[in-house]
Amino acid sequence: MNGTWWQAAARVPDAGRRAQALARQLQLTKPQGSLGRLEQLAVTLAGLQGRSDPSVERIWISIFAADHGIAQEGISAFPQEVTGQMLANFAQGGAAISVLARHLGAELELLELGLVQESVPLPGVRQLRIAAGTENFLHQPAMTSVQCAHALLAGREALQRALEKGADLFIGGDMGIGNTSSACALACLLLDQPAKRLVGAGTGMKDSGLQHKTQIIEAALKLHRPMVDSPLEALTRVGGLEIAGLAGAYIAAAQEGMPVLVDGYICTAAALCAVRMNPGIAPWLLYSHRSAETCHQELLDALDAEPLVSLEMRLGEGSGAAMVVPLLQAACRLHNQMATFQEAAVSGSRL
Amino acid sequence: MNGTWWQAAARVPDAGRRAQALARQLQLTKPQGSLGRLEQLAVTLAGLQGRSDPSVERIWISIFAADHGIAQEGISAFPQEVTGQMLANFAQGGAAISVLARHLGAELELLELGLVQESVPLPGVRQLRIAAGTENFLHQPAMTSVQCAHALLAGREALQRALEKGADLFIGGDMGIGNTSSACALACLLLDQPAKRLVGAGTGMKDSGLQHKTQIIEAALKLHRPMVDSPLEALTRVGGLEIAGLAGAYIAAAQEGMPVLVDGYICTAAALCAVRMNPGIAPWLLYSHRSAETCHQELLDALDAEPLVSLEMRLGEGSGAAMVVPLLQAACRLHNQMATFQEAAVSGSRL
Repeated sequence: MNGTWWQAAARVPDAGRRAQALARQLQLTKPQGSLGRLEQLAVTLAGLQGRSDPSVERIWISIFAADHGIAQEGISAFPQEVTGQMLANFAQGGAAISVLARHLGAELELLELGLVQESVPLPGVRQLRIAAGTENFLHQPAMTSVQCAHALLAGREALQRALEKGADLFIGGDMGIGNTSSACALACLLLDQPAKRLVGAGTGMKDSGLQHKTQIIEAALKLHRPMVDSPLEALTRVGGLEIAGLAGAYIAAAQEGMPVLVDGYICTAAALCAVRMNPGIAPWLLYSHRSAETCHQELLDALDAEPLVSLEMRLGEGSGAAMVVPLLQAACRLHNQMATFQEAAVSGSRL
Repeated sequence: MNGTWWQAAARVPDAGRRAQALARQLQLTKPQGSLGRLEQLAVTLAGLQGRSDPSVERIWISIFAADHGIAQEGISAFPQEVTGQMLANFAQGGAAISVLARHLGAELELLELGLVQESVPLPGVRQLRIAAGTENFLHQPAMTSVQCAHALLAGREALQRALEKGADLFIGGDMGIGNTSSACALACLLLDQPAKRLVGAGTGMKDSGLQHKTQIIEAALKLHRPMVDSPLEALTRVGGLEIAGLAGAYIAAAQEGMPVLVDGYICTAAALCAVRMNPGIAPWLLYSHRSAETCHQELLDALDAEPLVSLEMRLGEGSGAAMVVPLLQAACRLHNQMATFQEAAVSGSRL
């Protein structure tokens, strides 16, 4: 394991293909710009994939599941055993992401990076068990440096499996009770913000519960903030194994030249961390949806990201990204299959 | 032809099925409300379709094409012959809606309600030719009452063909050079607003062109406003054959109990007119996207409609609605196929 693989350069998108795609958009039988963001998407994907006919038909989804020591502080509406129970639900096909992946014909890979409870082998789940969940970051770093590096590598390996299978789009998803607290703390360290600015309801905290969650994260930030001198250190101290896995996958995707469709709040926190660890990866990350987790917007702003849709979703699991895949597919098909003004013998604009 | 069919009562959505769907949403393995608008969509569709397993897999798309006399005033970036040329492009499969319909497996029906140029028979196009385009509404009513009634009926008949084919969702699309001027004038009459409030760039008017378009519409409103005492009269005076066709289809859909997915600016103007003609139809109209035509928002506000996405599209042809179909499909599949907490043995919220 080479400790600095994540600093290696990302691929540079193909400017020639991008320009060619832009020129083609102007020739298709529609008023210029009338397909709005779909035009931009097709052009971007052409540049990223280095193809004149961009395509996102072979989707790879890796779900990273892990437990969080911070859950001991009562910051989630759901009990901690739900992480493992939901992993079983993913494997059995009953979760939202299972349903969505099935209908996309996507490859759905499930990774257990570390649950509190003893792992029971589940069909279709890769059990890495880097730790029995993270430590409680209210009192100590969530991970050791070795555990964090291991989780980053798990993400890179997931991306490599996606590559080997010929995927043309990578989606990461998260499962971990307590992980909005971890993502919030991470974002606070990366953006130098107080907890109250970036905290949200997660699976359903309200009023006094939300106030408690904010206080816990603020207290933890007091402990860690003075010690953090790098994005990696922030990730190690308050991140989660699944958040590190996502960050590792995103960095590797950019290094290998595979476009990523980023899900909601947790994934955007992982993306922010990944971009801070290696700024050159930014062009490879496309943003799917604006989460109902209100503070998601702050993270998106920091990434200069404008998600495609706002559907008030806040489920995680990669579900928002999976929901948006058909829009990317349509953008590519329109780009590739529409007739040009010349082909269709349609008169152009007089302006 | 019965002159008042459009005033007949719309179906009433099934409140029992709706309540049942709402209850099921609370049992699915996700935090309450975490699928956001997709939950509301599934519940709404269950009520409209009167089924516990709502489904929008059989999509019907009718494109209504017609010319506009107002195009003589130079209010469009494209020459008038483009209406007919694009109809041919639809038939040949090269237009945006052709590409999208193909990938949805949707039935795409093309209707020519009236072009200026002599109709050349096109394979797959129903040629009704109610008039050689509308009259120039700067100087006289766009349609006679009989022509308008004929176009409304054409919409109803399209809906009936969709019903016979077992469609579970109706999408209407428009094609007609000059039709944003017609839709704008119609909306101005229905909402009692000046042209400058509701006018937009259409296929690409800017600056002085847009100013000219506004002046033409304002002048036409001066002629017609004093004479308009009903939504039907407004439609007849400044509407288009395709706009009347869309309105007729929407009203018939609500009467027959088929959900409609409304496209952008032109279709929303038709929907507003249809709802003013028969307010009971409103629950049957779902709104797909917010158009880049800035004044679309005013029409949506008047209908109390919140579209699902904002992708800066402004193409028409039903393309925005077709783009959004996968979101409705995903909403239904999640509703029907996700496991409940009990089925998956997942612990519920502690709150």
